[in-house]
Amino acid sequence: MTGTDSGLLAPVWAGAEAADLVTDEAWVAAMVEVEVALARAQATLGVIPEAAADAIAGAVVDIDVVDLAVRSRGGANPIVAFVTAFTACVPEDAREYVHRGSTSQDILDTAAMLITQRVFAVVRRDLLRVAEALARLADEHRGTVMAGRTLTQHAVPVTFGLKAAGWLSSVLDGLDRVRAVVLPAQLGGAAGTLASYVEYAGDPGHGVVLSAEFASVLGLPEAVVPWHALRTPFVDIGSAATVVTGALGKFALDVQGMSRTEVGEVVEPSAEGRGVSSAMPQKRNPVLATLVMAAARQVPLYATVLAQSMIAEDERAPGAWHAEWQPLRELLRCLGGAAATAAELAEGLEVFPARLRENLALTGGTIVSERLNVALAPVLGKVEAKKLLARLSRSADFSAALRAAPELASVDVDALLDPAAYLGATDALIDRALARPRT
Amino acid sequence: MTGTDSGLLAPVWAGAEAADLVTDEAWVAAMVEVEVALARAQATLGVIPEAAADAIAGAVVDIDVVDLAVRSRGGANPIVAFVTAFTACVPEDAREYVHRGSTSQDILDTAAMLITQRVFAVVRRDLLRVAEALARLADEHRGTVMAGRTLTQHAVPVTFGLKAAGWLSSVLDGLDRVRAVVLPAQLGGAAGTLASYVEYAGDPGHGVVLSAEFASVLGLPEAVVPWHALRTPFVDIGSAATVVTGALGKFALDVQGMSRTEVGEVVEPSAEGRGVSSAMPQKRNPVLATLVMAAARQVPLYATVLAQSMIAEDERAPGAWHAEWQPLRELLRCLGGAAATAAELAEGLEVFPARLRENLALTGGTIVSERLNVALAPVLGKVEAKKLLARLSRSADFSAALRAAPELASVDVDALLDPAAYLGATDALIDRALARPRT
Amino acid sequence: MTGTDSGLLAPVWAGAEAADLVTDEAWVAAMVEVEVALARAQATLGVIPEAAADAIAGAVVDIDVVDLAVRSRGGANPIVAFVTAFTACVPEDAREYVHRGSTSQDILDTAAMLITQRVFAVVRRDLLRVAEALARLADEHRGTVMAGRTLTQHAVPVTFGLKAAGWLSSVLDGLDRVRAVVLPAQLGGAAGTLASYVEYAGDPGHGVVLSAEFASVLGLPEAVVPWHALRTPFVDIGSAATVVTGALGKFALDVQGMSRTEVGEVVEPSAEGRGVSSAMPQKRNPVLATLVMAAARQVPLYATVLAQSMIAEDERAPGAWHAEWQPLRELLRCLGGAAATAAELAEGLEVFPARLRENLALTGGTIVSERLNVALAPVLGKVEAKKLLARLSRSADFSAALRAAPELASVDVDALLDPAAYLGATDALIDRALARPRT
Amino acid sequence: MTGTDSGLLAPVWAGAEAADLVTDEAWVAAMVEVEVALARAQATLGVIPEAAADAIAGAVVDIDVVDLAVRSRGGANPIVAFVTAFTACVPEDAREYVHRGSTSQDILDTAAMLITQRVFAVVRRDLLRVAEALARLADEHRGTVMAGRTLTQHAVPVTFGLKAAGWLSSVLDGLDRVRAVVLPAQLGGAAGTLASYVEYAGDPGHGVVLSAEFASVLGLPEAVVPWHALRTPFVDIGSAATVVTGALGKFALDVQGMSRTEVGEVVEPSAEGRGVSSAMPQKRNPVLATLVMAAARQVPLYATVLAQSMIAEDERAPGAWHAEWQPLRELLRCLGGAAATAAELAEGLEVFPARLRENLALTGGTIVSERLNVALAPVLGKVEAKKLLARLSRSADFSAALRAAPELASVDVDALLDPAAYLGATDALIDRALARPRT
Repeated sequence: MTGTDSGLLAPVWAGAEAADLVTDEAWVAAMVEVEVALARAQATLGVIPEAAADAIAGAVVDIDVVDLAVRSRGGANPIVAFVTAFTACVPEDAREYVHRGSTSQDILDTAAMLITQRVFAVVRRDLLRVAEALARLADEHRGTVMAGRTLTQHAVPVTFGLKAAGWLSSVLDGLDRVRAVVLPAQLGGAAGTLASYVEYAGDPGHGVVLSAEFASVLGLPEAVVPWHALRTPFVDIGSAATVVTGALGKFALDVQGMSRTEVGEVVEPSAEGRGVSSAMPQKRNPVLATLVMAAARQVPLYATVLAQSMIAEDERAPGAWHAEWQPLRELLRCLGGAAATAAELAEGLEVFPARLRENLALTGGTIVSERLNVALAPVLGKVEAKKLLARLSRSADFSAALRAAPELASVDVDALLDPAAYLGATDALIDRALARPRT
Repeated sequence: MTGTDSGLLAPVWAGAEAADLVTDEAWVAAMVEVEVALARAQATLGVIPEAAADAIAGAVVDIDVVDLAVRSRGGANPIVAFVTAFTACVPEDAREYVHRGSTSQDILDTAAMLITQRVFAVVRRDLLRVAEALARLADEHRGTVMAGRTLTQHAVPVTFGLKAAGWLSSVLDGLDRVRAVVLPAQLGGAAGTLASYVEYAGDPGHGVVLSAEFASVLGLPEAVVPWHALRTPFVDIGSAATVVTGALGKFALDVQGMSRTEVGEVVEPSAEGRGVSSAMPQKRNPVLATLVMAAARQVPLYATVLAQSMIAEDERAPGAWHAEWQPLRELLRCLGGAAATAAELAEGLEVFPARLRENLALTGGTIVSERLNVALAPVLGKVEAKKLLARLSRSADFSAALRAAPELASVDVDALLDPAAYLGATDALIDRALARPRT
Repeated sequence: MTGTDSGLLAPVWAGAEAADLVTDEAWVAAMVEVEVALARAQATLGVIPEAAADAIAGAVVDIDVVDLAVRSRGGANPIVAFVTAFTACVPEDAREYVHRGSTSQDILDTAAMLITQRVFAVVRRDLLRVAEALARLADEHRGTVMAGRTLTQHAVPVTFGLKAAGWLSSVLDGLDRVRAVVLPAQLGGAAGTLASYVEYAGDPGHGVVLSAEFASVLGLPEAVVPWHALRTPFVDIGSAATVVTGALGKFALDVQGMSRTEVGEVVEPSAEGRGVSSAMPQKRNPVLATLVMAAARQVPLYATVLAQSMIAEDERAPGAWHAEWQPLRELLRCLGGAAATAAELAEGLEVFPARLRENLALTGGTIVSERLNVALAPVLGKVEAKKLLARLSRSADFSAALRAAPELASVDVDALLDPAAYLGATDALIDRALARPRT
Repeated sequence: MTGTDSGLLAPVWAGAEAADLVTDEAWVAAMVEVEVALARAQATLGVIPEAAADAIAGAVVDIDVVDLAVRSRGGANPIVAFVTAFTACVPEDAREYVHRGSTSQDILDTAAMLITQRVFAVVRRDLLRVAEALARLADEHRGTVMAGRTLTQHAVPVTFGLKAAGWLSSVLDGLDRVRAVVLPAQLGGAAGTLASYVEYAGDPGHGVVLSAEFASVLGLPEAVVPWHALRTPFVDIGSAATVVTGALGKFALDVQGMSRTEVGEVVEPSAEGRGVSSAMPQKRNPVLATLVMAAARQVPLYATVLAQSMIAEDERAPGAWHAEWQPLRELLRCLGGAAATAAELAEGLEVFPARLRENLALTGGTIVSERLNVALAPVLGKVEAKKLLARLSRSADFSAALRAAPELASVDVDALLDPAAYLGATDALIDRALARPRT
């Protein structure tokens, strides 16, 4: 097969930096890095000559990835074939030191951690962009009153600032989850005892020393025990990604709702050719939000495959492990694409305060009826107040009816009807969201 | 991005025929076919000149897929950019007839049906290979007695033939499900009314006529109504694929269980470099079964994304549709890879009847205690029989203890202990499975 | 534990007929039916006395369900404890004929099929109610023009009738899927060979005869082979339920979208206390649609558990089988509750044609710009027409600008702007959906 | 409906303490607690009289849960009907102070946090029991050599202690995840602004003060902002539960594998009636492991429903929220039942070192061939060593053949063949797992 997978069916990550980090080529490069790190660590500890490690590190890698993929079927994983191909790239006298004492899963799992680390770095950067943009919106729109909606209906007034503050807080939850994921190096040998590494060193103490050195060369944390069949790291990656795309998906879904033709409260940043239809020039589709939604609908299911791979047999599992790789790749590139797309969306989102006010007025003042219930009870008695409000809410013009009601002659009806005066703790809540660390 | 996706992380489909059918390149080719079919149908109905249809059909398509993928972000789907690129490949005077009256989703959904149809054809072929091989095993091993296992423990005797008959029946369930899926052409125009197509024809009756002609050119069934936001076909694809990989996964899991070092009842077909470990020459890993398991663990989750996309807004949905494409691709190539791999496994599976008999004897005759319970009750009374069996089952050699028991002097203990004489309806059940149509 | 599970956390099925059919009590009743059917079949075939079957059928069942549940832990399934409890309810001289030759899974799987069959009957009835109501809406509102929406934006005109026809077609897809599910009786004995049943009969031919008689007593189809570890029926149940709740969820989601305060095109049927808020009297929440959505979001995941249980070890699996029962219950009651709720929603849905027209006019005529592109091209030339439309679509009043355009002096602009004249094949498509069998 | 849900279909949690904590009755009790806490907080802050708070706290609650469930349909959630029922239980003069300023979701979400907190406490306790038992096994069996298995095949020696240390480490991962979940009180009012609470207090600063006081009364952390439509807490609950049941499922699956009749290395703790079959007295089914597996297969899918509910519309969502409740309940009781069951399993697991040794010897010494490869290379040269080993590994008795090989006359073959001498860093790794905090 000679096909590309450049994201034709996944525009959310097509061209995204994260997508570049998870190609077959990037995986092969990460495998090479892991083999080099192992050689470096073994050289440092005197198990192989420094010159061999230098030769391995200096290998000119020229591997036919497509051919490698097909040959991976023989071992049910790419490492056996990769080691053969990589070894052939190493100068002859250093070849016997390649992959010394190692096992497929040590290389592949560690490569997965490197790749995830890199995608996470990009994701963190883009989430910070999202967070900064949302923080700005939250602050700028503290006073931009709009209809709060619950179960699709106007409920009570909120501000666009509070809405943005909520999105922000949720995105920061995602960022925290990504930061908290531990991505440990994997080193265990054939069945997690490190015996083969120890055998080469001839020293029983060598195992954990090598494990530490290997992790250190790679800049990854060390695991407590080899985790070939103890898959917490993969589950954690999936959980964190799910929170991130969940948070971004909530933001995107709200943008879509507010973009509806009948609502028209926000519009996505425009760009040459974006969201337009040549046949329907009036359309301006919320395409960035749509791309984010596409990712947010996929990621939790990829994460579920990873989660279910915890149920793994013996020292190394025949299938649970092998099922993880492709879903991990899809998850990472959806995650990265969603974060980059959401950054673009948040940074350029246009808000129309006039339209927000217009919509707020659609229900003729009934949007503050919760308040009127509370405020009129002491004046008219609770039962009478409720009766009056129920009766007046059926009139064509609720505000006018209130103003005309003789029972309310003594009440400043206009003040009560002002949505901007019924915002509760909105401002303080925005401050709290803005106070969350964003760096 | 210039990466390939050749299956390095998915050896189950690396190099498989199904994988070739779902590359970005194959999708572009299918899009071209759909545009050509539309032009052909419109020419047949006199909406565009025959010469234009010929020119469109004859276009030399030269599209940079990677570039196309990135430009797909503008419309959140690849079709807008594709139509531009494809039109440029068409001779100038026919260009205005390309994609006439059409909408992105008509092209992409119909292309998805073509691609699925092709993958399904390959899958059906390979499932028939699996079925033939299992039917042969079922028939050949009618008399190969082995331990039936329930909740991990030896229960009562079965035959390897019955086991194969069960796998066969389940695989045929999957084949039936695949055959039953309806893959309709999609033609609806911007919002499912066919209005734009009708407008070009200037005839209100043209809509359903074009729909029929278009489907007929492609050899696809016609839908009752446009299904832009009514996604039964995608859910059906997912459900059928899940039954197939479930059936193949059950087969693979049993092969793995029977391959365990302690069990050793079957071994996978050997091949140069398959399932071997250079460091551990004694190993013969069940890699084909492992590959099948890897697919069987992923497919139900890809199908879940498809199922959830039924919950789609309005006439065309902002996200639910876009989330389907990549999971569909992964599902199809896992499905195809699993079927091909399972065929190889079933056709070459080696069975060791001697080892099956050896394992059957492991529990010293207690494997027929269910039978003894029944058979001895009339002799000794139900309560006494049970007591005796419970007592004897604790002796080191159950068979010997039975033969020595004075209470059983009159009983042909050896006949009762013969596992081959306690097989119930096994033979008739095998016949029933073999009688299911396999063509 | 003495708690109820009456749906406090699942109002979609609280009080629904389907919920009554899946209680612990209903399961025990179904288990009793299965044991009785087995006894009847064995009596008919002369394996046990008719009087014993009568006594078993006449047993006064008095079983403490809560106690039974706790005792189920001993065997990891409820049948062992159930058989003990049930046997105690049978007159003493018939007790030895209870559960003769049987195994837990024969009873539980068959009980599951009976229960599913009953829920499906209720679901089919309620889906027919939904279908009738939607068919009526489709027919009545053939001419009710409204805005077609794609990616959240007004696209081209459709009719409410077409929308209802689409919902109808999708619901009929679900109904077809439910009808197609085969719910076979399960009879296999300890490991699927029927050996114990055969042993009691002393006749090797008895196995498949009993299997047929047992299924026939219950009115269930017979399986090809025992399916203890071949779980197609459960997967099929899940797939069918997913299509149904997907179709109902799509309908509910559209109702919610059209119910939004800014849209106001439909309202749910009112009922005492439904969808109201005492604090916010202006609200009329789409609660029926919300209940349906709650079910539609859960069902695909319950179905996934069932699908994954195909991957089952050996003759009977230690966990895959046990994981099915509770998700099956949740799936069935969500399905039944969703169907009943959707029937109420469809039958009482109020549509506001005036508001549909109002919204249609919101974009000042641009909703037919797709048509104008087509219609004006022959008049002005394709390029000029496009330029003109793009320019005019930026004016405040697109329709007025069109009427005033000197280039269009010769064109009947008002006719072109009429949304009702740009409905394509809408009517024919409605007819096709209405022509699908609904009985 | 008058049915119970006592776990008849879910023996993993039938009778478990966690199950008692999530009944409908327990939910109503939690709702009462939340209403009381709100009243207490409002009294403390002077918004309602202390006497009213006392009266509310002292209400004799007598609510018909079944009736309540059915009436919950009116508002699509149980709180509206609950508040009515609860208010009727409060002395008349305090009734107007019940639920003052509150909204359904404040009560239900906070009740969910209380219930989760309680289940988590029980789960933490039981996981510590699991951890202690596994730690003991890890320490006791440091020297219990056994076959390490990869892809179902014997690979190299490990110890049972290392296996237990791995299970332990994974369980401690789960415990850490459970501990890290933040379960914040929910207080936002109708649309998350706290406006209604503020209105009653007549003081804009009251909102966040009340929020803090409310959380403090309940002993729950406060959220940054109301999270009605920002659902991180539910996703976190699901993720943590998935890691726990994943870890327990891995342990259970290994127990099942080691319990197989052919393997026989461990057996579950026996108990009256557990795991026995009256018809097959030889069986001792691993029922505890089976129960744990049943939960481990369900939990990730319930968690997926929770994860997907992050995608929620507006200020409060019509369906995403409502879909969470029942899956949360199922998840919590599966989690609690699995932890309790796993504790019983870990504490009573019997290990058979003799059988472990026997199995280790099954491959006639080839289990150390990885070592021999390393050790013989310096003696014979790498290529010659490999050739020799490959040749000898085909002989019937590998050990004998090695001992007899003239090429190895100078080598202490017996020392090399000793599996106990090829354990790498096993001991140090066990120490590291044991050093993880368990309190």
